[in-house]
Formats: sequence, structure tokens, C-alpha cells
Amino acid sequence: MAQTTPNHTQTVSGWAAHDSSGEITPYVFKRRENGVNDVTIEILYCGICHTDLHHAKNDWGDKVGVGCLAASCLKCEFCKDSQENYCDQIQFTYNGIFWDGSITYGGYSKMMVADQRYVVRVPENLPMDAAAPLLCAGVTVFCPMKDHNLTGVAGEECRVISTSPSKEKEAKDHLGADHFIVSTSKEQMQAGKRTLDFILDTVSAKHSLGPYLELLKVNGTLVVVGAPDKPIDLPSFPLIFGKRAVKGSMTGGMKETQEMMDLCGKHNITCDIEIVKPDNINGALDRLAKNDVKYRFVIDIAGHSSNL
Amino acid sequence: MAQTTPNHTQTVSGWAAHDSSGEITPYVFKRRENGVNDVTIEILYCGICHTDLHHAKNDWGDKVGVGCLAASCLKCEFCKDSQENYCDQIQFTYNGIFWDGSITYGGYSKMMVADQRYVVRVPENLPMDAAAPLLCAGVTVFCPMKDHNLTGVAGEECRVISTSPSKEKEAKDHLGADHFIVSTSKEQMQAGKRTLDFILDTVSAKHSLGPYLELLKVNGTLVVVGAPDKPIDLPSFPLIFGKRAVKGSMTGGMKETQEMMDLCGKHNITCDIEIVKPDNINGALDRLAKNDVKYRFVIDIAGHSSNL
Repeated sequence: MAQTTPNHTQTVSGWAAHDSSGEITPYVFKRRENGVNDVTIEILYCGICHTDLHHAKNDWGDKVGVGCLAASCLKCEFCKDSQENYCDQIQFTYNGIFWDGSITYGGYSKMMVADQRYVVRVPENLPMDAAAPLLCAGVTVFCPMKDHNLTGVAGEECRVISTSPSKEKEAKDHLGADHFIVSTSKEQMQAGKRTLDFILDTVSAKHSLGPYLELLKVNGTLVVVGAPDKPIDLPSFPLIFGKRAVKGSMTGGMKETQEMMDLCGKHNITCDIEIVKPDNINGALDRLAKNDVKYRFVIDIAGHSSNL
Repeated sequence: MAQTTPNHTQTVSGWAAHDSSGEITPYVFKRRENGVNDVTIEILYCGICHTDLHHAKNDWGDKVGVGCLAASCLKCEFCKDSQENYCDQIQFTYNGIFWDGSITYGGYSKMMVADQRYVVRVPENLPMDAAAPLLCAGVTVFCPMKDHNLTGVAGEECRVISTSPSKEKEAKDHLGADHFIVSTSKEQMQAGKRTLDFILDTVSAKHSLGPYLELLKVNGTLVVVGAPDKPIDLPSFPLIFGKRAVKGSMTGGMKETQEMMDLCGKHNITCDIEIVKPDNINGALDRLAKNDVKYRFVIDIAGHSSNL
């Protein structure tokens, strides 16, 4: 984050890690000058993402949001097909290099400059704080469901799979799950064999896919959206004996992100969040590392404590 | 293999392993009595399969073949949809239990009894010895190609990926590959990134899928048909960043097996084999464990040395 190119002219206050300790402290830096497609955005809320990369989700007076994507080539088959997220020139909103050579500094700051082609509208009825994580986690789970003709709001039967029996009540009563499978229960995993069409795997730690593949019907699909740093164990037997598929999916294109936002607006879907102040980002990151948040931290950048 | 049920009335000479040393010696045992759907088959050639499970491929005077499948429930959605291979009551032709409780003893023997619903016709123009492996390896690679609209004979551009540069000439000149990628060459693997639509992974040893997934285009598919006993390493990044899929596939249904046989008959496709005599099965298994065969051992059960 040290390099600054000459066109970085807009001074902004933010928060950043300065060394490998990962401690987040106030940071004053310069954003790039606005280009012809750029908009300057006042940042009100910024979600904290579990990827342990960096984090970016923002919004402004006109109620817009910025997700992970800062730039792509705009010319390849994926950019032309509204799948910019798979462009091989992709640049993220954190630690990315914009077309003009400027650096993207993420959303832990009061203002950002974004190309309007990578900005989405946030529906009027959604509170900005609880909508912020939709731009990252939301679109990440939306795309694989949409790809498999599951909208999440059309009455599909939904099971939550968890290692923690204690989460069953909340999953059913609050989150609306129809069923709950405790993955550490041999009986429940045995009873669940060949019952599911689709599994969305959001686990960000190393794990074996074997027991979960067994839950899938023949021809069933498990989509991985978590990004463990170590390889996932993929046993061949449940894969080949059940003709199953393991697929990957990474965030979404801008068109899909807007579609997801509009769907959430229509059905009033927001995220369960816990607001943190900028001076407590480190505490939030520590708790995040211990899974101690339900379910997403959002930084209240502008110091608002209520919805906009 | 010790248990024999009362309806095993037909004495047959074969070859089998008797203990965990895996040494194959002559073995006289009894096959089940023919049931209403059963046919008795004289075994002429029997392929040796790499799965290190057991092995079964056979034929007879009317020129038929038996693959891996001995029985299935005949009632479930998969049996009704000609996908018996995914029936969860599946019984194999080796070490399986037939409906009447009798044991399936594989094809390392002079005669077998098979339900005619699990027997396919071998086209007249195909030599029985070089056709034998089609019933196992052939249908195993045919099904995933067919599922992805690749017939293998319609002029698709084909690359062979191998650790051994020495195989390039044979792959191109003899097997008809258009291109050859040495997987141990960083330059070739780098140059091959995002170039392939489909990879058929027949490797039966533990390996990482990462480098191969990188060769796939976005949305590309790698199908695993080998069955390593240890879990395969699946790194999440090439999976999610390329929206790629890893699928499994296991042998084929009877309808697909016949379709594959007929296609091979039409295009005169057979396997490169090395014939072994029954008294040299152990030598063949030893060499198979060292990859010392091009490309499939077939046991000449009846002592014919030429084609039928």
C-alpha cells in the first residue's frame, strides 16, 4: 500500500493494516482523480468479510453499493457476457490496480472513487447497513443458486448443515430452515444419504467433502464458495459412485449483483449484522477469526447508528 | 469367496486370489444355477482392470460381453432410466451378491452365468480380445464424453496430458492426439492455461487437481473416473476463480454400454492390448502395478491366440 501514483490527488481518511501483524490503525491516503466513468462515493457502511483478504462494501447518498470488483478488461467474452468476475484481467476493490495504474484501497475509509460500471443501486426500502454484506456474501451465494434454478425465495425446501446442534433452533425459527442436519451425528448423516439436490458449501476451513457428497442424490451438485488456503479433501468414491459434481463459484458479475439487490429489495431480504465503529475494527477481526459474530460485521464508517 | 449357497450347482475352473498376498492360483468353484433370465457364458477373454478390485469382462459363441454390472434393483429411478450403474442396490460381477444370494466370482474363469439384462452384444467385426476392455475402461470413458456432447469420433481437438515427454510421439502418431502437454513442464502448463473445455482424468493415484483445473476455460469441467484410495487434493482457488466443475462418473448403464459397443463397431475402435495366459496372471498384475503395459492386459481364458 506504499506506492502512490501521481494521479492520486484526493485525500481521504481510512483505516488499514500497515504490517503483517494485521493491526488496523487510522490511515490517511490519496484516492485517484475521478476519470470520465468514475464517481466519488461517501462511505457510510463497510462490511467486514471473512476471506481474510481485504474487504469492501460501500454506499453513498444516492444509495449505491460497491462490491469486490473495481475493474476488468471490458473486451473479453466474460466482460461482454456480464460475467466480469471471471475476466482474467479482474482487479478487486482492495489491493487492486486500476486501469490508470492507481491502487484500490478497499472500503475501510470515508470516501472512494469507483467506475460507475462497477456500482449498483441499493433499493430504497433496504437499510444501508444490513444491505452492505449483500454486495459480497449475498451475491456469492446468490449466483450458484441462480445457476441451479434455485432463487432462495421460491419455496425450495432448505436444510442447514452444521457441526453445532445448538444452532438448530435459530436456523429453523429465525433463518427459516425447514430441516437441520448435525454433521457430527453419524445417524443424521446416514439418514440424510442421497436426499439433497444441491449443497452450498460456505466453509472457509480445510475439510473433507466426502460426508457431504454422500448427502447428495445421484447427479447432485456441491458448490464451493469458501476459499480455504489448504486443498480440500475430495474422496473419489462418493464422487464417481454418485456421478456427483463439485463446482466453484466466485462472487458475481455486475448484472447479477444488481439482480440480486433488486430481488432482495422486492422480498425485503437483508443480512443479520453487528455494527462496529472504526476504532474497534481490530476487535471485530479478532472475533471474526473465532467465528464470534452473527453473522456479519459492518463498519459504521460515517458514525450513523441507525438506518438511512 | 468361501461362502457358497445351495443353488451353486455348476462346477467351473477359474483363477483367484485366496489370501491377502493377492497371488492368483487355479480355483475350482461353483456358479449359480441358471435362473429364468440367466445365460451361461463360455469365457474366452477376460480383461485385467487397473482398479485393483476384481476384474470382469467376458464373451461367448454368440459374441456377447459382460462388464462390471451383475444386478441392480430394476425398480428405482436409475434402473428405470437405464442408469443401473447408479442404483444403490448395485451388485458387481466380482465379489457381488446376486438376487438369489449367490456370489459373483468375476471373469477369471472358463464359464459364467449372467442375467441377460446385463449382457451386451459385441459387433461382428470387432475381435473379441481387443474388444474385451471396452466393457470396463471403454464405457467408463465413453459416458462422461457423451454427457458432455463429445463422442470421441466427431473430430474434436484432443490433447493428451502426461508426465512423460517420451509418450508424445506415440500419443500423436498412434493414438491420434492433436496435441500433447507435459504436465511436469511449467512452461507448457502455463501456456495451456484456460485453453481446454473438458478434461477426462483417468489417474488412479493420489494427485492434486489444481494444475489441471488451471488448464480449463471458465466453466470448464474435469471428470474423475480413476479411483485413488486417498482423497484427491482440490484447491479452492482454481475451482472458484474459474467457476469450474469437478465431476465423477462410474462405468455406464447397460444401454450406454451397448451404445458404446455399437459405436466402436461402426468405427472399428478396439483397445491396444497385451494377451496373457491364465498361468501368468500374477506376472501381469505385478507389471500392471508398475504401469508396465500398453495399454490393457487381457487373459486368453480359452487358449485362443488369434481373433474370433
